[in-house]
Amino acid sequence: MRTRLRGALIGCGYFGQIQLEAWRRIPEVEIVAACDLDLEKARRAAPSAYQSAEEMLEKERLNFVDIATRADSHLRLVELAARHGLAVICQKPMANTWDEAVAMVHTAERAGIRLMIHENWRWQPWYREAKRLIDAGEIGQPISYLFRTRQKDGAGPQPYPQQPYFVQMPRLLIYETLVHHLDTARFLFGEIELIYARARKVNPIIAGEDQASLVLVHAGGVQGVIDGHRFSEVFPSGPAMGEAIFEGDRAVISVRGTGDVYLDGTLVWENRVRQGYRGDSVWATQRHFVECLLSGAPFETDAREYLKTFAATEAAYESVRTGCSVSPRNWWEAVVK
Amino acid sequence: MRTRLRGALIGCGYFGQIQLEAWRRIPEVEIVAACDLDLEKARRAAPSAYQSAEEMLEKERLNFVDIATRADSHLRLVELAARHGLAVICQKPMANTWDEAVAMVHTAERAGIRLMIHENWRWQPWYREAKRLIDAGEIGQPISYLFRTRQKDGAGPQPYPQQPYFVQMPRLLIYETLVHHLDTARFLFGEIELIYARARKVNPIIAGEDQASLVLVHAGGVQGVIDGHRFSEVFPSGPAMGEAIFEGDRAVISVRGTGDVYLDGTLVWENRVRQGYRGDSVWATQRHFVECLLSGAPFETDAREYLKTFAATEAAYESVRTGCSVSPRNWWEAVVK
Repeated sequence: MRTRLRGALIGCGYFGQIQLEAWRRIPEVEIVAACDLDLEKARRAAPSAYQSAEEMLEKERLNFVDIATRADSHLRLVELAARHGLAVICQKPMANTWDEAVAMVHTAERAGIRLMIHENWRWQPWYREAKRLIDAGEIGQPISYLFRTRQKDGAGPQPYPQQPYFVQMPRLLIYETLVHHLDTARFLFGEIELIYARARKVNPIIAGEDQASLVLVHAGGVQGVIDGHRFSEVFPSGPAMGEAIFEGDRAVISVRGTGDVYLDGTLVWENRVRQGYRGDSVWATQRHFVECLLSGAPFETDAREYLKTFAATEAAYESVRTGCSVSPRNWWEAVVK
Repeated sequence: MRTRLRGALIGCGYFGQIQLEAWRRIPEVEIVAACDLDLEKARRAAPSAYQSAEEMLEKERLNFVDIATRADSHLRLVELAARHGLAVICQKPMANTWDEAVAMVHTAERAGIRLMIHENWRWQPWYREAKRLIDAGEIGQPISYLFRTRQKDGAGPQPYPQQPYFVQMPRLLIYETLVHHLDTARFLFGEIELIYARARKVNPIIAGEDQASLVLVHAGGVQGVIDGHRFSEVFPSGPAMGEAIFEGDRAVISVRGTGDVYLDGTLVWENRVRQGYRGDSVWATQRHFVECLLSGAPFETDAREYLKTFAATEAAYESVRTGCSVSPRNWWEAVVK
C-alpha cells in the first residue's frame, strides 16, 4: 500500500470542521496535525495539536497544509508553507486585498510549491451536471443566466450565528458569498468581461453589505445576473443555497434549491447526495486537490487562475463605488499570463 | 338608462383588436367609430369606419378616443383629440422621444382634456394581489424583487410574428416590453431613484436590443432586478409572460408564469381568469379609464404621472450608452410637479 499524503489543518473553526470531515473520507490523505488558537479544537481534529502554525510546520513531516483560517492570515501562512516547501490548499476569500492575493501567487511560484484555492461551489454536483449539459449542446447557444442566492440568517441583532465575525467584515456579501457564484459563472460561461454591481446594507448593525445585484457580461456574449441577500430562503429550500437558471436559444436548465436539475421543466438529474457539504462539494474539491497533487495535473482553481475570480470581486466593489460597470481585466490582465 | 360614453378607436391592428374586445364588455362604453389605414379592419371594428382620424373626429360626436397606433403618431393624435376637446386613452410606448412625451402632456393640459396612458401591466390581477399583500404587511419590510420576463418569439429569420415591425425598431426590449415592468415596479415599490441597464442584440437581424438586465433602486431602498429576453419561456408558462418574486424580511411573494400567487410557497391567489388579455388587464385598464372619466378621479397612469415611467426607459438607455447607473429624475423632476 502506497504512503498516504500527510496533511495538516490550520484553523479548526466552522469551515475547518467541514473540511476535516471530508479529508476523513479521502483514503489517500491522513490529517496528521492541526493547529488552532483554541488548542482543544486542534486536539479534537488531529493526533498532533498546536496553537502555532510555525511550530507545527517545524515539527511535523508533511506533504501539504490546508489553510482554513480567515483571509487576513492567508499570505502569511502561504509564506510559511513556502518556506517548508509544502503544497497548499487555501480557503476563499483568497486574501483581504488584491495585492495580498498577487503576493500569495508570487510567493508560491518562487518557492515552487503548488497552491490551490479551496473554491467548493463549482464542485457542487448540480453545477457539474449543468456544465455537462451546456457543453453537450443541450441548451443550444447560451444566452442568459441567473443565480438567486439566499439564506435566512442575516436578520436581527445577532445575524450569521454560524460565522458571527461576518458582522464586522467591511466587505461581506460579494466578498464572502457571491465570490462563489462569480467563480461558478466563470466555470460555466468563461471569462467575465464586464461587471456591474449595486450593493447595500439592509441590517444596520453590520459593517459591510448584505444585499447585492450584479449584472455580468462574459467574453462570448452571455449576459447574466447574480442576485443575493440573506433575508429569505428560496422555495423549495435545500443545499444549493438558492437557485440558478441557465438559458440557451434551444432549452433552459434550472437548478432548484434542492439541487435537482431540470431541462425545460423535466427532471434530468436528481440530487441524491445526502452527506457532506452542499452536494459533498468540499469533498470533491479536496479530492481534486489530491488527484492533482498525485498526478501533477493543473488545479482548476490554481491560485494564479483564481486571481480572475478574485479580480471579479474587486471589479464588483469598484463598480459599487463608481456606479459604472467595470472590467475585471483591469486587475488580472497585467498579472495572469 | 344613462347615455353611454361614445368612443372611437384609432388603429385596428394587433393590440387595437384586444382593446376592442375589452370595450365590448364595458357597458358604459360604445365604440361608435374606428379608423385604420386598412379600411376593412376599421369596418370590422365599429359601425362607422374611416381611414383618416382627422375625418373621423370631424364627423363623429365622441366623448373619447382610444389611440392604439404606434408611438410615432401619438403626439399628432393627441393634438388632434385636444382640438376636439376629447378625452384620450393612449397606448404605450407613450412616445418616440422624451420631448414628444412631454409635449403630449402639455398639449392635453393646455386643452383641458384628460389623457391616460394605456399601461395594462400594473392591472394584471396577480400584481394587484401582490400589491394588496405588500401593503397589508404580509412580507414585512420589502427588500428585493425580480421580474423575469420571457417569451419565445425572438429567434430566427422572422421573429415577432404578432408584431413584425418589432424587427425595425431602433429601441425594442426596454422601450416596448420592459417599460411594463418598470411601471409595475413603480406601482409596487414607489419611485425609481437609480437604474442600471445592460442590453444587447442576440438575434442579428433586428435593429434594436432583445436582451436586457436592469438593476433598480427605489426611493425607499428596495433593490430589484428586471431581466428580460425573448428566446425562451418560463416553466410553467402562462399569461404572466414570465415570473416575479417580491421579497421582504418576513416572507416572499412569488407570481408564477400561470399568474398564480404564492406566499412563502403556499398558493394564496389562484388565477382563474380565462378571458381577455393577460388576466384581463386590458379590460381592467379600460374600466379604470371609464370610471375616472365618469367620477373625475385621477388616472393611475395619467400622462403626467406616467412620464416617470417613460423617464425610467430613457434613463435605462442612457445607462446602456454610458455603462453607469442613471437617475430617472434627471428627466422628470424638472417637468413633473
